[in-house]
Amino acid sequence: MTLAIPAELITLAGQLADASAAAIRPLFRSAFAIDDKSDDSPVTVADREAERVMRALINALRPQDGIIGEEFGAERADAEWVWVLDPVDGTKSFTVGRPLFVTLIGLLHRGVPVLGVINQPITGERWLGGEGVPTTLNGEAVTLNETRELACARIGSTGPEYLSTGLAAFEALANTCRYKLWGGDGYLYAQVASGWLEVVVEEGLKLHDFAALAPVVNAAGGKMTDWQGRPLTIASADTGRVLAACNPALHALALPAMQVID
Amino acid sequence: MTLAIPAELITLAGQLADASAAAIRPLFRSAFAIDDKSDDSPVTVADREAERVMRALINALRPQDGIIGEEFGAERADAEWVWVLDPVDGTKSFTVGRPLFVTLIGLLHRGVPVLGVINQPITGERWLGGEGVPTTLNGEAVTLNETRELACARIGSTGPEYLSTGLAAFEALANTCRYKLWGGDGYLYAQVASGWLEVVVEEGLKLHDFAALAPVVNAAGGKMTDWQGRPLTIASADTGRVLAACNPALHALALPAMQVID
Repeated sequence: MTLAIPAELITLAGQLADASAAAIRPLFRSAFAIDDKSDDSPVTVADREAERVMRALINALRPQDGIIGEEFGAERADAEWVWVLDPVDGTKSFTVGRPLFVTLIGLLHRGVPVLGVINQPITGERWLGGEGVPTTLNGEAVTLNETRELACARIGSTGPEYLSTGLAAFEALANTCRYKLWGGDGYLYAQVASGWLEVVVEEGLKLHDFAALAPVVNAAGGKMTDWQGRPLTIASADTGRVLAACNPALHALALPAMQVID
Repeated sequence: MTLAIPAELITLAGQLADASAAAIRPLFRSAFAIDDKSDDSPVTVADREAERVMRALINALRPQDGIIGEEFGAERADAEWVWVLDPVDGTKSFTVGRPLFVTLIGLLHRGVPVLGVINQPITGERWLGGEGVPTTLNGEAVTLNETRELACARIGSTGPEYLSTGLAAFEALANTCRYKLWGGDGYLYAQVASGWLEVVVEEGLKLHDFAALAPVVNAAGGKMTDWQGRPLTIASADTGRVLAACNPALHALALPAMQVID
């Protein structure tokens, strides 16, 4: 039985994207203080302001829902519906003026990612999709990419340094593909959802990354799992290993190369 | 003595950017045939159409000028002024729907790059600069980034696989920097010109790449040379090794790491 996501939650997902974009846009390419977090990634004022405004909206409109945010932690994390927020995914891209960072808004139902938004506030691109909600880009249905051969597939990943245990497996897989691209963070998965890119392999993704990405890719007719082919759940954040492909047949062809990693 | 670039050539540079953008825009994210070139990079219809329209404009308005284009070769290459055209730099970005590819329009005066345009047709960003023409982004002066320490500098390059002889030297340099980013092609140099990114190191750039990039970076108050610190000329295309920094002092700090390569 397919889960029916209440319409007001889908509407709220869009409102969160609108509100966070309004908070982020004026700060892009402006000078402001950059903090270091413990993991050494730059955190911007944009990150904090956007999460604040999204939390305020959720607390006002859906006070019964939980929130897990990259910046300000968890509240009501045992609620039936939990919003998972990453206001600026690709903080490095943001700080060097590259309009590929994205705001990630995921919705968990009893711990399972069921709805996602990938929003780019500068180019004005918004991908939204989830269970029973076919993925759209700015309201238009995305097109399924039916590539069935790895030799025709383009493969992307943010950078070799992020593939801490899987670099050799990734390179072996990439060598069977048409070519590879670096850079991109969450934007890569939007490219897969839109059918412009065939495969993405990454490692170390956090819950606030993949909670939005997996529903968008899956509801576009693609498939996103861990490196063993299992659906992504809260437990997947232990390693954050993900494989996304533009269709299930191509996912099945790419999977064995990554299954060599336990 | 500073070269005075005739105003009509600066105007024409902008017209070439307008015309190529109009040719490219409708083809972005549309389905069309992709050819392979001998070097295996995908060449799109956009590449050819944009170069055709730029050549037609030059031949109509400045028939005495030379043209060296990525797609259709050279004509009147011994003219005093020679236009160097790369309609779609970052063809892979283009084909996977990533709006970071750029159109590069360079102008040589007696073999020396003196004026450049870096144009992004989708985001509508245009960098223009050269000798006696301070670099602007969409007509606004860019801001000088005065970072004077490598430890504070972000360093970029399109991908490790393109640094065929210089990867170890690049990684050693990157280890002294704040962090590194992959991906970006010609857009990286626009980021340096705008002061958003501090250092770029690449290898294998062609004349049609750096002929536009070097004037834009240098006229922004940055410095772009080969790995020995020499200005880029037609001869630099032998290895295509380039180092760009957001100011000359930072360039001087980064240079020794790359000078280890002959």
